[in-house]
Amino acid sequence: MMNMIRFNSDYVEGAHPRILQRMMEENTIQRSGYGRDEVCESARARIQKACAAPKADVHFLVGGTQTNFTFLSAALRPYQGVISADTGHIAVHETGAVEACGHKVLTLPGRAGKLDAGQISEYCREYFSGSEKEHIVMPKAVYISNSTELGTVYTRNELLALRGVCDHWNLYLYLDGARLGYGLAAPGNDLDLAFLAEVCDAFYIGGTKQGALFGEALVIVRDELKPDFRYFIKQNGGMLAKGWLLGLQFDELFRDGLYMELSRHAVSLAMELRQALTEMGVPFLVDSPSNQQFPILPDAHLAVLKKKYAFSVQQRVDDTHTAVRFCTSWATRPEDVAQLIGDLRAL
Amino acid sequence: MMNMIRFNSDYVEGAHPRILQRMMEENTIQRSGYGRDEVCESARARIQKACAAPKADVHFLVGGTQTNFTFLSAALRPYQGVISADTGHIAVHETGAVEACGHKVLTLPGRAGKLDAGQISEYCREYFSGSEKEHIVMPKAVYISNSTELGTVYTRNELLALRGVCDHWNLYLYLDGARLGYGLAAPGNDLDLAFLAEVCDAFYIGGTKQGALFGEALVIVRDELKPDFRYFIKQNGGMLAKGWLLGLQFDELFRDGLYMELSRHAVSLAMELRQALTEMGVPFLVDSPSNQQFPILPDAHLAVLKKKYAFSVQQRVDDTHTAVRFCTSWATRPEDVAQLIGDLRAL
Amino acid sequence: MMNMIRFNSDYVEGAHPRILQRMMEENTIQRSGYGRDEVCESARARIQKACAAPKADVHFLVGGTQTNFTFLSAALRPYQGVISADTGHIAVHETGAVEACGHKVLTLPGRAGKLDAGQISEYCREYFSGSEKEHIVMPKAVYISNSTELGTVYTRNELLALRGVCDHWNLYLYLDGARLGYGLAAPGNDLDLAFLAEVCDAFYIGGTKQGALFGEALVIVRDELKPDFRYFIKQNGGMLAKGWLLGLQFDELFRDGLYMELSRHAVSLAMELRQALTEMGVPFLVDSPSNQQFPILPDAHLAVLKKKYAFSVQQRVDDTHTAVRFCTSWATRPEDVAQLIGDLRAL
Amino acid sequence: MMNMIRFNSDYVEGAHPRILQRMMEENTIQRSGYGRDEVCESARARIQKACAAPKADVHFLVGGTQTNFTFLSAALRPYQGVISADTGHIAVHETGAVEACGHKVLTLPGRAGKLDAGQISEYCREYFSGSEKEHIVMPKAVYISNSTELGTVYTRNELLALRGVCDHWNLYLYLDGARLGYGLAAPGNDLDLAFLAEVCDAFYIGGTKQGALFGEALVIVRDELKPDFRYFIKQNGGMLAKGWLLGLQFDELFRDGLYMELSRHAVSLAMELRQALTEMGVPFLVDSPSNQQFPILPDAHLAVLKKKYAFSVQQRVDDTHTAVRFCTSWATRPEDVAQLIGDLRAL
Repeated sequence: MMNMIRFNSDYVEGAHPRILQRMMEENTIQRSGYGRDEVCESARARIQKACAAPKADVHFLVGGTQTNFTFLSAALRPYQGVISADTGHIAVHETGAVEACGHKVLTLPGRAGKLDAGQISEYCREYFSGSEKEHIVMPKAVYISNSTELGTVYTRNELLALRGVCDHWNLYLYLDGARLGYGLAAPGNDLDLAFLAEVCDAFYIGGTKQGALFGEALVIVRDELKPDFRYFIKQNGGMLAKGWLLGLQFDELFRDGLYMELSRHAVSLAMELRQALTEMGVPFLVDSPSNQQFPILPDAHLAVLKKKYAFSVQQRVDDTHTAVRFCTSWATRPEDVAQLIGDLRAL
Repeated sequence: MMNMIRFNSDYVEGAHPRILQRMMEENTIQRSGYGRDEVCESARARIQKACAAPKADVHFLVGGTQTNFTFLSAALRPYQGVISADTGHIAVHETGAVEACGHKVLTLPGRAGKLDAGQISEYCREYFSGSEKEHIVMPKAVYISNSTELGTVYTRNELLALRGVCDHWNLYLYLDGARLGYGLAAPGNDLDLAFLAEVCDAFYIGGTKQGALFGEALVIVRDELKPDFRYFIKQNGGMLAKGWLLGLQFDELFRDGLYMELSRHAVSLAMELRQALTEMGVPFLVDSPSNQQFPILPDAHLAVLKKKYAFSVQQRVDDTHTAVRFCTSWATRPEDVAQLIGDLRAL
Repeated sequence: MMNMIRFNSDYVEGAHPRILQRMMEENTIQRSGYGRDEVCESARARIQKACAAPKADVHFLVGGTQTNFTFLSAALRPYQGVISADTGHIAVHETGAVEACGHKVLTLPGRAGKLDAGQISEYCREYFSGSEKEHIVMPKAVYISNSTELGTVYTRNELLALRGVCDHWNLYLYLDGARLGYGLAAPGNDLDLAFLAEVCDAFYIGGTKQGALFGEALVIVRDELKPDFRYFIKQNGGMLAKGWLLGLQFDELFRDGLYMELSRHAVSLAMELRQALTEMGVPFLVDSPSNQQFPILPDAHLAVLKKKYAFSVQQRVDDTHTAVRFCTSWATRPEDVAQLIGDLRAL
Repeated sequence: MMNMIRFNSDYVEGAHPRILQRMMEENTIQRSGYGRDEVCESARARIQKACAAPKADVHFLVGGTQTNFTFLSAALRPYQGVISADTGHIAVHETGAVEACGHKVLTLPGRAGKLDAGQISEYCREYFSGSEKEHIVMPKAVYISNSTELGTVYTRNELLALRGVCDHWNLYLYLDGARLGYGLAAPGNDLDLAFLAEVCDAFYIGGTKQGALFGEALVIVRDELKPDFRYFIKQNGGMLAKGWLLGLQFDELFRDGLYMELSRHAVSLAMELRQALTEMGVPFLVDSPSNQQFPILPDAHLAVLKKKYAFSVQQRVDDTHTAVRFCTSWATRPEDVAQLIGDLRAL
């Protein structure tokens, strides 16, 4: 496994060298604990600026699952639940962490990983028109991800429609941005951070998969969600003693545009792969414009490929074909993608 | 605050340079996620060896609060609680994280931060002899820390007595080792890791305060506590995507004796400070042989000191005196301690 | 609303007169609290006998939701979930009580309210063959109801198949018997209590909808689920101070066959209604052999009916038709059913 | 045990005959479920009137533990806790139900079962002046009981002081009235329901120990605590399908002053017992003016008494003496108290 070329996920390497370099330089500076230090302040300011949201609260947490359940446990009362696509990370891959906090995840069928406003509207209309509502979990938040677990991205119009339905039914709109940069770098994307800060009540900017060693930056826009949030972080184990380690990484990622530069790198390589596969006539499980690609390949070919490449199995498609996932990342080497394309062509 | 010399805690600096160096060297190696990699395997093996416990399970988590509530939520059924000294970290400084997992912390009065077997025996005898036990939380685990929150350390005999009472009442014995090295390096200490692995059902070896950037190594000795523990880590947000970052730090700390070397450094400086204060006739809140010292100083002197040094207030003692805490760490500079002693003498 | 004839549910009246009579007779007898009294003992013995399960533990709780979440919180570890049909009461109508205890309800599409062994087998095979299982909630119990929320009933063969798949995947089989008597009284039913005590790990015998004022009798068959269950009852608010009130009701229901007698009464009247509707050519949402009937009726007819009868709306079927629910109960008067049939025929 | 005279608690009999009589009379009236019926409406109106609080929300729950944790889980956010005397029922005898909902019970030493404003003020001043508050559970509610677990009662002035400190620190004041009537009937009492509705944010009027079969009436005065409370009741298993059973009992208790009449009966008999014991020179563990009396008696005498009477052991006082509890209730027969007094005198 050591010499394998890994496309199985986007967190197989460490961090961008600038981050490590700065960690080394500032290693012996004594700082306050728990995210109350100058580096975190600087990183917060950079993110507020990037989001054109000077009043947003920015918190740094360690990982995505932690960020999701910590935010949702703050946003929801005990009898309230969160609407998610059935493919949503909180619905599938977080070991029921949201439920462990006491909240039901109300799943609706995802459309290529996305929710649309119509679904939520219909769900809420039925719920809120009921006569014995207190027997049923009340929807109070909508969870979406961008890019989604299937690599797809939302458009401005789609998010505006979701915002509208959330306003109508008094729901929070929360966006999981574990792969936010890869979504924003997708060809055709029309979102940006400032728009997200307008349209969402809260969202997080992923670091772990986007060039940091670890860490996610939660941006809370809605005022009523801000008070006492640090209690939730601490109680849920997300308050790093040396919080400046988180601040430092985001400070670096949001200085000089590094975050988007790294994101574009990954997407550009993914587009090369997509282009090559398309030219080979390979079908895709879903049409993804971002760093995750889901080609459907013959099992025989996969058996050959897996001797040299790590990738992940998404789902069986028929008796002889499987949809798999290839991820690029900020650290992916162009020559590795070229080699993969070459090997795919040879098959 | 930037030019202040910080003795307020033992997590004010980064990590030992060897750790950062190795992070840099291995930054681009592609690895499996979630702690299933070669570096974590190596670190686990080193810790098992240091503990003379080849069958122990070793898990790496991100922080102390997280480690405590994750372990306790795995060890306890919903109606069971954990006995702790009233000064125990889980009882005071973790925002009720154990309660947030549904479990009562059953506090007994600490004796200089420690529990003794007699207290627990008495508590359990009364509890288990009751006629309507199901109306009262059942004690099922004992939480201790070493060194304690007051810097004190347990002896072999004390731990053997605790083990005895735990066996008698069928309780788990769990040791919080956030400052384990500093405890083991204390003058007069007669514990070692192998003994802890014999006497405890589980304990953790702290990294955050002991030379790592972050991270704690949980050692589970008791077989019945081992199954499915990774589910608990993931559900509670403690499973780092790049788990090798945790492994790497402990691999380095447990190679060539670095962990104890750093611990001895901190304690040695703390002993210098203690010696000097004692010579000055300064009384202490508690007699601590480890890296935390709790002198009782005149408020007037503290007002002067705090212009130059950061320390933490422990408690008011009388109208004109306060017990404060000075911490040394693996990174404390001898010249800073010398300067502090000089300034104390001058007052 | 006062003079309306209620078919909207099966808990619209009080209790069978024998129960009230006995309550009055024994009102001033002083008894031990919390279910540790002679009446509860007698009722437990009767239920054990009816189930041919002398070693089963029998606990009396106050209501169905409480019984479900109390049992499941005892049966599941924090990372485990319970499989349910998407129409299951715990999945829909208990305000997320199971999630509030921390557990995900894993819904599979119900087949007329029932789960089949094949679905569960497929779900578990996929789950347990996964490589990163700890990221996903582990299925550990199967929740079924009989009669179901749609009035349908399981057969012996179906339950044996479920038992088989539960054994294979190490799942508990739990049956919600809120309407157990009505299921057992259904034409064609081949189950009985003794069979349920063989095939299930636990189940409850409903009282609230079956002739009692309130109360459910939980029968725990599997040994490993028995210890300390009273702690769960107390912690979850289900331990009635005057527990003998629960015992007394079940003691009466299980003396002289009253429980099944009442059940047959309700089902017999439901069958009259079904027969009449069938003769009228009215279609049904589901073919129910028990006390709940789900005819699909023209909205115009329903508008007339609702002036005189209470019934509940199940779902819209098309622009002009709605499936509604008529429930009979142990207390339903034959003349009321006759009148309803007459009115339906007149429409 | 059957022929024993029970003074061990105040829930050893059924209900006042008027309640049973009315249950019988109204048994076959068909009613809406879940507390949305005319009887509950009537009972709510009577309680609002008795409390001079026409805008208070009144909810009927089944038992005391359930009422306490349901209310507190609605009142507290996840990081908030409730202050209680260390003798408080929620702190001792509810199997950690409040913690099972995620909230720490912050215990302060009770003074004869009561909290005073000074304690709470001191606790809050220290807490809210802290610099790292988010590491510690935030106090948000104060739990008191009246009469207390030790039979003592609060005065108007004491409650006004508590109200003041709650206002100052933004805490809810919640009163557990499991034995509220017995407290209000105590000689020297200067409280009444209208005063409680002014001074508390919420409180409950106990039924179980006060003449009902079961049931507690929760009165929510503070507006911000009212919304969606029925969700909490349902989710926590407290929503009785035949909710009118609860309404009916309180409707009867609060018609014609029955509630206080029964309370005075119990207290009057307790005062006879107290008077007699005092005349015999028997000391008391606590000076209780209500239906619970805690004499300290020689073990030799208790050994004789327990052949004929049930009572409960409160605590060992010295090697030869034990404090025990004798409870009277609405149903206690004067001749039984007379007999007990006679037997005590004979010893």
